[in-house]
Amino acid sequence: MPYELLYFSVSALGEPIRLALTLGDLEFTNTTTKNCETFAERKVALSPYGDAGQVPLLILPDKKTVLCQSRSILRYVGKIATHDGAPLYPTDPYAAYAADALVDLAEDMRAPINATFAIEDQAEKEAARAALFEPGAKIAKWLAVLDAQLGKDPMTAVNIGNIYAFCMVNLFRQPTFLDGIPPDFAVKYENITKHHNWFANLPKVKAYYAAKEDRDGFKPLA
Amino acid sequence: MPYELLYFSVSALGEPIRLALTLGDLEFTNTTTKNCETFAERKVALSPYGDAGQVPLLILPDKKTVLCQSRSILRYVGKIATHDGAPLYPTDPYAAYAADALVDLAEDMRAPINATFAIEDQAEKEAARAALFEPGAKIAKWLAVLDAQLGKDPMTAVNIGNIYAFCMVNLFRQPTFLDGIPPDFAVKYENITKHHNWFANLPKVKAYYAAKEDRDGFKPLA
Repeated sequence: MPYELLYFSVSALGEPIRLALTLGDLEFTNTTTKNCETFAERKVALSPYGDAGQVPLLILPDKKTVLCQSRSILRYVGKIATHDGAPLYPTDPYAAYAADALVDLAEDMRAPINATFAIEDQAEKEAARAALFEPGAKIAKWLAVLDAQLGKDPMTAVNIGNIYAFCMVNLFRQPTFLDGIPPDFAVKYENITKHHNWFANLPKVKAYYAAKEDRDGFKPLA
Repeated sequence: MPYELLYFSVSALGEPIRLALTLGDLEFTNTTTKNCETFAERKVALSPYGDAGQVPLLILPDKKTVLCQSRSILRYVGKIATHDGAPLYPTDPYAAYAADALVDLAEDMRAPINATFAIEDQAEKEAARAALFEPGAKIAKWLAVLDAQLGKDPMTAVNIGNIYAFCMVNLFRQPTFLDGIPPDFAVKYENITKHHNWFANLPKVKAYYAAKEDRDGFKPLA
């Protein structure tokens, strides 16, 4: 029996989980607002947090156990899923720390975008988003740190850290559902670019995105 | 050789790590802005992120390896430290998920306070903080969810989840360095109160706070 992931039809916080399941050959149903008419009702009915519940939600093959909190779900899948014979959440404590810290750093980089969702005026929202990528601004600051950290990744073993970093940078690449992101924001980060191409060319990742036209940012860069 | 934790002299994001080390009988030097004149320079020199580095930082007994990212450090210590014969980061994937999700939930509850640090006017800052605890407001909303989740904790095994939840609620209890928090904000949450008293009465926790007058909020409630 497969897993089921409940999330919006965009990449965002659901995508690292989808990739971890894919890399680990764990079959899953990808339930979204586009292919499920009762999405909103199911979310509330299934979430461990009830009315306050958010997605993503992961329903385990027993069809009863439901996990929430995107990064907690990712860590869980990382312990169940293996790639090249090793779990995506490393068993060695220091290696696990390195993967955990990469998740936290990529999240520090992504999080400033949240404040822009509440801006109602479209032009104002796009300007606020573009400003986050200017030198020294909140997202640019963490992109520089992420670039340095990814330079230390041997790029040999897949883990939840490099999955999350790959997805959070790609969240801002074109085509993205986030209006206002400068299309060339990532070009100057050499390690991020190198890391992207290593990861996007992993056979399972490449195959996963091959036919997805709305996920061009997740494919190998030209 | 002991561990060394570099953090401000307040509880906040350093406290879960201090408690995990204490519960695991791992000796550590508690370096703070109050007892280290070169704190700012050491922070930059030691941080894996360099100039962009933040505290807490944990220096391992080899005196060379430095960990950053508070919750990643906590997860690392949780794998090294045992209490009652079990690691503070559970080895079973689902138990680890439950602990991870409790960390994430307690962090969701704490995080809205961050936006108030930038408010310069003291009265305005205190009002903004108090407003976060009003019914339905950002912190109150997550406190209600946390209350429900802690009601599901059997309160038998210590893990990074209940350590983090304990510390993040206590961060807001009196005396706190955060001006403007309603002193009685937690009274109405029965499970949080029950959980607090279970945790605060653990012999090692009780002994740790016994002589600390600025940590009354971490002691058993009267």
